[in-house]
Amino acid sequence: MTAAFEQLWQEIAPIGRDPKGGYLRYALSTPELVLRDWFRNQAARRDMDVSEDGNGNLFAWWGQSWGHDAVITGSHFDSVPHGGGYDGPLGIVSAFLAVDALRERGVTPDKPIGIAAFVEEEGGRFGVPCLGSRLITGAITPKKAAKLRDADGVTFGEALGVRPAGALPDLMGRMSAVVELHIEQGRALADLDAPVGVASAIWPHGRWRMDFTGSGDHAGTTRMADRHDPMLTFAYTVLAANKEARLSGAHATIARVLVEPNATNAIPSLVRGWLDARAEDTATLDRLVEAVLKRAHDRAERDGTTVVVEPESNSPQVTFDTTLASRLSGILGDAPILPTGAGHDAGVLSAHVPTAMLFVRNPTGVSHSPAEHAPDSDCAAGVTALATVLDHLSRKDSR
Amino acid sequence: MTAAFEQLWQEIAPIGRDPKGGYLRYALSTPELVLRDWFRNQAARRDMDVSEDGNGNLFAWWGQSWGHDAVITGSHFDSVPHGGGYDGPLGIVSAFLAVDALRERGVTPDKPIGIAAFVEEEGGRFGVPCLGSRLITGAITPKKAAKLRDADGVTFGEALGVRPAGALPDLMGRMSAVVELHIEQGRALADLDAPVGVASAIWPHGRWRMDFTGSGDHAGTTRMADRHDPMLTFAYTVLAANKEARLSGAHATIARVLVEPNATNAIPSLVRGWLDARAEDTATLDRLVEAVLKRAHDRAERDGTTVVVEPESNSPQVTFDTTLASRLSGILGDAPILPTGAGHDAGVLSAHVPTAMLFVRNPTGVSHSPAEHAPDSDCAAGVTALATVLDHLSRKDSR
Repeated sequence: MTAAFEQLWQEIAPIGRDPKGGYLRYALSTPELVLRDWFRNQAARRDMDVSEDGNGNLFAWWGQSWGHDAVITGSHFDSVPHGGGYDGPLGIVSAFLAVDALRERGVTPDKPIGIAAFVEEEGGRFGVPCLGSRLITGAITPKKAAKLRDADGVTFGEALGVRPAGALPDLMGRMSAVVELHIEQGRALADLDAPVGVASAIWPHGRWRMDFTGSGDHAGTTRMADRHDPMLTFAYTVLAANKEARLSGAHATIARVLVEPNATNAIPSLVRGWLDARAEDTATLDRLVEAVLKRAHDRAERDGTTVVVEPESNSPQVTFDTTLASRLSGILGDAPILPTGAGHDAGVLSAHVPTAMLFVRNPTGVSHSPAEHAPDSDCAAGVTALATVLDHLSRKDSR
Repeated sequence: MTAAFEQLWQEIAPIGRDPKGGYLRYALSTPELVLRDWFRNQAARRDMDVSEDGNGNLFAWWGQSWGHDAVITGSHFDSVPHGGGYDGPLGIVSAFLAVDALRERGVTPDKPIGIAAFVEEEGGRFGVPCLGSRLITGAITPKKAAKLRDADGVTFGEALGVRPAGALPDLMGRMSAVVELHIEQGRALADLDAPVGVASAIWPHGRWRMDFTGSGDHAGTTRMADRHDPMLTFAYTVLAANKEARLSGAHATIARVLVEPNATNAIPSLVRGWLDARAEDTATLDRLVEAVLKRAHDRAERDGTTVVVEPESNSPQVTFDTTLASRLSGILGDAPILPTGAGHDAGVLSAHVPTAMLFVRNPTGVSHSPAEHAPDSDCAAGVTALATVLDHLSRKDSR
C-alpha cells in the first residue's frame, strides 16, 4: 500500500508547487483546475461517473450517481498560499486508493460511495472557507457567494462560470454518512504514537475583517503629535489579540494585512487586518472576540483613528456524531479520538448528515506551511483505515 | 501668472491619476514615461534641447547643453503610490513657467539654465529614494543601482533599458548652482502666512528593512504557547518605534509591510517591515534607530523569532548653503527660512554644488496623500519667486 500511495501521490506533487516554497493551489486557478482534471481522469480509470453539483464541487461515484444512502468521502484540492500539499489532497488521493483496496478485497458496496472534491475550503481566494460545503448545505446563499471577490476583483460567480446552484436538500438527503480523511494539524497523534485517529469535535471559529482608517500623510514631515496613524492601532490590536487568546486558553491570530498606500515614507490611510479566532466553546469565543475588539476601539480613540469590523465567516461549534466516532474508533483497533481547532467541510456537513473525520499523523504538527508533512507509511495506514470505514458504512446493515 | 499656471498644470493633472485616489506615477512606469514625453514636448515648445545623462535623469536647456556654470532647477515626476500630484511635478512645471516669465521680462541669462527631471526620487518603485541624484553624484554605484528590484522583480537596469552611467563628475563640475522648488510638506508657511519660503536644512534620515522570521503554521490548531509568530515581533516594533520617536523628539514610521503567506488562517513565516526614521541631527537619529532595533531584538527573543535588519538608504544631514539661502530670502522680500524632514534630490546635490530650495505653502501640510494641495495663486507666487532666483543665479556676476 505504501508503494501504491507513493506512486499516486507523485502524480499530483508537482502541480501548483511554487518556487518560493509550498503550493499555490487557489480554488479554480490553473493548478486547481489541473487537479480537477486529474480527478476526472482518476474516476475514469476506475469506471466511476463524475457529477458536478453546480456549486463547484465534484463527485466521483462507485455505484449509482446520487443514489440513495450514499456514503461520501473526499476532501479539497485548494491550499492556503504557500501551504503544504497534504491539507486537502490527502483525503482525495486516499479515497481513490481506498476504492482500489476495497475492490482488491472483492467488496461490492451495498450503498453508492461518492468521492468529493469540495471547492474553496481554505477561503484562500474568495475569503469564505468551506464555501463549497456551505453552498450545498445552504449555509451561504448563492447570491452572496457569487459576489465574493478575489484579490484581482474576479468574483466567485465569474470564476465558476455559472451562478452557483446553492442549497441542494434533495442531494443532501441522499447522503447516509460522510467521512473526511485529513492530515492532522497538530501533534496529538505523534504524542500518542498512533498513525490514525478519529475526530471528536471542531472548535467554533470565525474571521473578522478589521478596517483601521487614519490620515495618510508624509512620514518625514508630519509631527508625531499630529499623526492619526492606523498602523499603530493595528499593531496594538495584534498584540491584544495574542494576549486575550492566551488569557482565555483560546486561539487568536492576525496573519493577513493589507496597507494603503504601503509606501515606506507615507503614513497609511488604511490598514486592513483579519482576525482569526477559535475557542473550545462558543461562549469563550464570543468573550474573546469582544475583548479584542474593545481593545482595538479603545486604542483607536487614543490614536484618532477608526475601526470598522466586518464578520467574514462564522463556523459554529461542531461535535461529530459521538456514536459514529466510537464505532469507527472500535473497528480501527481503538484509534484515539481527538478534537481539532481547524475547520473542515466535514464540519459544515455534520449539521445535516452523520459525519466523521479520520486524521493521519503529522510528526511535527506543522500545517499551512511548506513544512507540512506526513510519512508515506502513515498515509498508507490512513488509506487502509479509510477503506475499512467505507466498507463498514456502505453495508446495507450499517445504520 | 495664476491662469498660466492653471493651464499648464491641467495638462499633467490626469496623467497617472488612480480611481482609488491620488497618483500612481512610479518611476519609468507608463504614466511617468508619459510625463517624460510631456517634458520633451514642453522643452521643444520653448526651443530647449533635451539631454539625458544615462542615469534616467532628463535635462532641458535654455542656453548651451551642459555649458559651464549651469544653473540647475527642476524636480521629479514620480509619486509615492496614491500620493498627491504636487510633490515633484510642481518643481518641473514651475521651472518651465519661470523660463517663460524670464523671456517675457526680456532676460537673456549669462549662464545656461537646465530644467531637470530626476528619476525615482521617492524610492517608491526600487526602494532607494533620490536614486537619480545619487547616481549622478556617485552616492550609489551603478552596479548596485542596476540590481535594485521592484515588486514584480524588474530591475532598475531593465526598466532603464541600459546599464546606468553612474557618477558624472565632469557634468556635476559644470553646475554653478541648484535650486529646487517643492510644495512644503508641513504647515510652517501657513502658520507664518507666507506663500514661499527658503530651505535651511534637511533632517538626516534613512530606511531600514527589517525581516521578522518565525515558523509558518496553522492559525487554528497551533497552541499559543507553541507559536513563533513574527507578526507579534513586528507589531511590538511598530509601537516601539512610535514611542522612541516621541521620546526623542524625532520621527519614526513603519508604514510598509509584506507578509508571507498573508493568509487569514496561516501564522506567517515572514513579516517584512520598513522603518523610516528622521531626526534633527545625526546623533539623535542614531540613538533613535539603535533604541528601536534593540527593542525589536529583545521582543524577538521572547517570541522565538529572528530579526535581520538591512539599511536600505541613508541620507546624511543636509545644511543648505547658508549664504545662498540668506541671499535668496533677501531678494524674495525676506521669505522665511525653514528646515524640513523630507529628503530631496537637492539634498543629495548640495554636497557637491551650492544648492537651495524654495517651498510653496501647503495650507493643510498634508503630503504623500491624495489630499496634498497648494492653491493656484500660491503656485503662481512660487513661479515668480523661482524666476527671480534663476534670473539672479544666471547672471555673470552671481557667484
